[in-house]
Amino acid sequence: MKSTACLLLSSCYKPGIVAGISQFFKERDLNILTFEQHSDEGRFFTRVEWEDDGRWKNQEDFRSEFQSCAVDVCAEFSVHFFSAKQTLGLFVSKEPHALVEFLARWEMGEYANTEVSFIVSNTEDSKVFADRYAIPFFYVPTKKGSTDHEAEQLQIIQKFNPDFIGLARYMKVLTKDFIDRADCRIINIHHSFLPAFVGAKPYEMAHEKGVKLIGATSHFVIPELDQGPIIEQDVTRVKAGDSIPKLKQRGRDTEKRVFANALSKVLEHKVIIYKGRTMVFE
Amino acid sequence: MKSTACLLLSSCYKPGIVAGISQFFKERDLNILTFEQHSDEGRFFTRVEWEDDGRWKNQEDFRSEFQSCAVDVCAEFSVHFFSAKQTLGLFVSKEPHALVEFLARWEMGEYANTEVSFIVSNTEDSKVFADRYAIPFFYVPTKKGSTDHEAEQLQIIQKFNPDFIGLARYMKVLTKDFIDRADCRIINIHHSFLPAFVGAKPYEMAHEKGVKLIGATSHFVIPELDQGPIIEQDVTRVKAGDSIPKLKQRGRDTEKRVFANALSKVLEHKVIIYKGRTMVFE
Amino acid sequence: MKSTACLLLSSCYKPGIVAGISQFFKERDLNILTFEQHSDEGRFFTRVEWEDDGRWKNQEDFRSEFQSCAVDVCAEFSVHFFSAKQTLGLFVSKEPHALVEFLARWEMGEYANTEVSFIVSNTEDSKVFADRYAIPFFYVPTKKGSTDHEAEQLQIIQKFNPDFIGLARYMKVLTKDFIDRADCRIINIHHSFLPAFVGAKPYEMAHEKGVKLIGATSHFVIPELDQGPIIEQDVTRVKAGDSIPKLKQRGRDTEKRVFANALSKVLEHKVIIYKGRTMVFE
Amino acid sequence: MKSTACLLLSSCYKPGIVAGISQFFKERDLNILTFEQHSDEGRFFTRVEWEDDGRWKNQEDFRSEFQSCAVDVCAEFSVHFFSAKQTLGLFVSKEPHALVEFLARWEMGEYANTEVSFIVSNTEDSKVFADRYAIPFFYVPTKKGSTDHEAEQLQIIQKFNPDFIGLARYMKVLTKDFIDRADCRIINIHHSFLPAFVGAKPYEMAHEKGVKLIGATSHFVIPELDQGPIIEQDVTRVKAGDSIPKLKQRGRDTEKRVFANALSKVLEHKVIIYKGRTMVFE
Repeated sequence: MKSTACLLLSSCYKPGIVAGISQFFKERDLNILTFEQHSDEGRFFTRVEWEDDGRWKNQEDFRSEFQSCAVDVCAEFSVHFFSAKQTLGLFVSKEPHALVEFLARWEMGEYANTEVSFIVSNTEDSKVFADRYAIPFFYVPTKKGSTDHEAEQLQIIQKFNPDFIGLARYMKVLTKDFIDRADCRIINIHHSFLPAFVGAKPYEMAHEKGVKLIGATSHFVIPELDQGPIIEQDVTRVKAGDSIPKLKQRGRDTEKRVFANALSKVLEHKVIIYKGRTMVFE
Repeated sequence: MKSTACLLLSSCYKPGIVAGISQFFKERDLNILTFEQHSDEGRFFTRVEWEDDGRWKNQEDFRSEFQSCAVDVCAEFSVHFFSAKQTLGLFVSKEPHALVEFLARWEMGEYANTEVSFIVSNTEDSKVFADRYAIPFFYVPTKKGSTDHEAEQLQIIQKFNPDFIGLARYMKVLTKDFIDRADCRIINIHHSFLPAFVGAKPYEMAHEKGVKLIGATSHFVIPELDQGPIIEQDVTRVKAGDSIPKLKQRGRDTEKRVFANALSKVLEHKVIIYKGRTMVFE
Repeated sequence: MKSTACLLLSSCYKPGIVAGISQFFKERDLNILTFEQHSDEGRFFTRVEWEDDGRWKNQEDFRSEFQSCAVDVCAEFSVHFFSAKQTLGLFVSKEPHALVEFLARWEMGEYANTEVSFIVSNTEDSKVFADRYAIPFFYVPTKKGSTDHEAEQLQIIQKFNPDFIGLARYMKVLTKDFIDRADCRIINIHHSFLPAFVGAKPYEMAHEKGVKLIGATSHFVIPELDQGPIIEQDVTRVKAGDSIPKLKQRGRDTEKRVFANALSKVLEHKVIIYKGRTMVFE
Repeated sequence: MKSTACLLLSSCYKPGIVAGISQFFKERDLNILTFEQHSDEGRFFTRVEWEDDGRWKNQEDFRSEFQSCAVDVCAEFSVHFFSAKQTLGLFVSKEPHALVEFLARWEMGEYANTEVSFIVSNTEDSKVFADRYAIPFFYVPTKKGSTDHEAEQLQIIQKFNPDFIGLARYMKVLTKDFIDRADCRIINIHHSFLPAFVGAKPYEMAHEKGVKLIGATSHFVIPELDQGPIIEQDVTRVKAGDSIPKLKQRGRDTEKRVFANALSKVLEHKVIIYKGRTMVFE
């Protein structure tokens, strides 16, 4: 199977934009595999995936050629070549279900050319999962009310320099400083249907409020807690008489599925962030 | 088909409570049709439905006999005889979909022995639906910032004295005074997945936030806006590029279904309110 | 709001097809609103919707101009101008829920420029619904084992010459001869998740088999019973102890939603039939 | 946490049955935790779970005392003490996702006091998963058209004598003789929404037919292929243009969830088989 590449583009709307983009690929005899467009509030979003013939070595290479096409429509764009391995670091705390699910799918080859660079945890419980796949594991203990652990975590990040970080139920809040320095997209799974039930105890809050569905939300991390652009959400039905532990158990299945699916969208470069929200392609 | 009656009971937990209740019906040779129990935080919730042989004329009649059974377990209970017609008043504003759906199901006999006493609206658009079923229709105009219309509405309520009021997308906030004087359970449909997006513009807020599912919530009305005990909720998936009008259209189907199903639970006496939330039986 | 037009096209796959089609519209300064493509087994499916400037009077007019663009890719295509009213005839038997739901949505303007030409029924029960909207109603009684009624039905069809016929829970099997002569797309709602439970008693079969979800399927009608290309399907969960009448009640909500959504896809020209199945666009 | 026990009972319907059963536990001062009843076609199904005080050593012990209670209502019943470890053998072929999901949940303690006795496979691929949990693994190769492997498999079963066997995507058909000799409940996961698409290639059949939802079904195994009593089912939506490999990938998530949930119901003794179908308790 040949490798593919994809273009993510957002632009103002102008008649002829589809023609312009498709013409660019036609002139170069490149085989378009999928061409998807959506619009929102006058902004136009495109994702094109094509069979990569290796003509462009990197982003800059592509950019210099495509720029004239983009300038007409004040477009912002990025390109990704799936022949290039991308790297992911994972953070986890006590509960391993989101981590385990991601690793199981990753092992089955469901993620596009991705290497898991490392796993960081504030407990040693998840070392066993890292060991199964020979992934470097770092135990970085945390203390309540302290952010001292972030220095060590940042050293790990700087060493491996991952393209993405996934927070697979990592239960410490990240500081703005950490987020700035990590300098890569960070994807979190929150155990509620956001914007409802922000913070540390969403199942307790859901039980107290008496909602009839519980949910999970995967989003990009920004300094404001649980406020980043939402990538994927899902819910499951509460049954009459469900206790808080029962809600937690029911929720686990939703959390791990939502996290795994969100990472799939991110790693396949199907997400554009704009105005604090996302456009997610099929 | 014989008529049935049902008991709704909440109590502290004590061994033998199921035996006590079932023995009560056995001693009277009454045929139990369904017997459902749930517990939550040490509280015990029961609904029993039986074939009614007409031995009790009313609540008080039943109460005097059942009281000794209840006293042991500090139970609160109510009984409903489905042979007795119950009455419902409906409020609606401009958008008729929740009203139309309820009336269509009601016409098919899906609701237990219920009469629709009247429809009140602040537009004349829904008169046509009232006329279809020969339901008394009252046009009570409202003015922004004013609550003058409530006096006229309360006169209508006092005249018909309904057991329940359903707010089928009625878009004026009810005052505490109105709720107190109406003196009956009021069921609302709110066009979001509460507790997210309280207030008048939930689809606009959902679009702004970029949630991936939109929902609807039917709840009992209390003076705090959109904070009453939740009866039923459901969601539907947003598609990439959905505009606000598209979200509203998608949402209508969820709203009308949730409202119709919530009224079904209420009119079949399958809902117990406690601690600001509900226990809903099958 | 300006009117729009849409192109439905299926073709063999050839690099440059997106460029070719989009160039066709660009050269004519036509504003593309949505451009959606999918592929299946080497076949390529496109739907384009654009702002119609009235330059083409009809299909043939468009065809003569677009033909050269299509010939390269051995495309089959059709075009629809939404400024042109399209017409729909409806058939119904005893149970009106699918009819009532469709009419309620139609009344709210959810269907693209569509006129309901007539309603045919083998009971008089649905006349009341036709009368509400002043739609011509024809009572055509049917006899078990006989197809004599088809002659009268065909006279009605020939008189109104509808673009589509919707079978809103019409419970007589159509003969091949009738389907041939009706000479328009016929859309049925079947009360099971096809291909399971073909025929007259799907809820009874679902109960007997003990399935945990019951479904509904909307499909185009072909002479083979319940075998036509599927347009839309959905399911709902069975609860422990559901009787056959309870299944039928639960199923009604799914049936009417699936039928209404399928008609929406058909009337918005978002369905291409191929190889006995369908490609349905967003 | 104290251990619990549960009674599964099916009986003809007779007034007083709830009273009779609950009285039995009350007289013995046993604390009922859940008491759930359903009926179907005049048959009555009960599950009672109570805090076990160890008074009964085993089924027979309980049976001799409860018999008089059951005889009145021609009941069939079984009792299970969750203090007793139960054992499960697992079969798997090439695709490990259902096995991996079950083991991950099992590792998190989601299944009631269950030991995985062994894993049998006709490939060596799954040995790695068995090794992770130190579960005995047996590679028993199979040949097309031959049932010679069953002798070796039966030896393993006879050695470990498991209470249940789970077929976690085991792709060989079991003979009637094997099923008889295995002499325990066997639970399968089939990768379609049964009764649609029986046999080896359900995703290919689903694609060919053009269904809009694909499903998975977990059922007890009987000699007739894919015809046994259904325990649990679920579906997921197909997207326009999904290829067969894409359907298989989407389906995996449904398959593993349905299998894990069905085993949960079986291992918590929440399933009664009757008339070729099941009653599944909450």
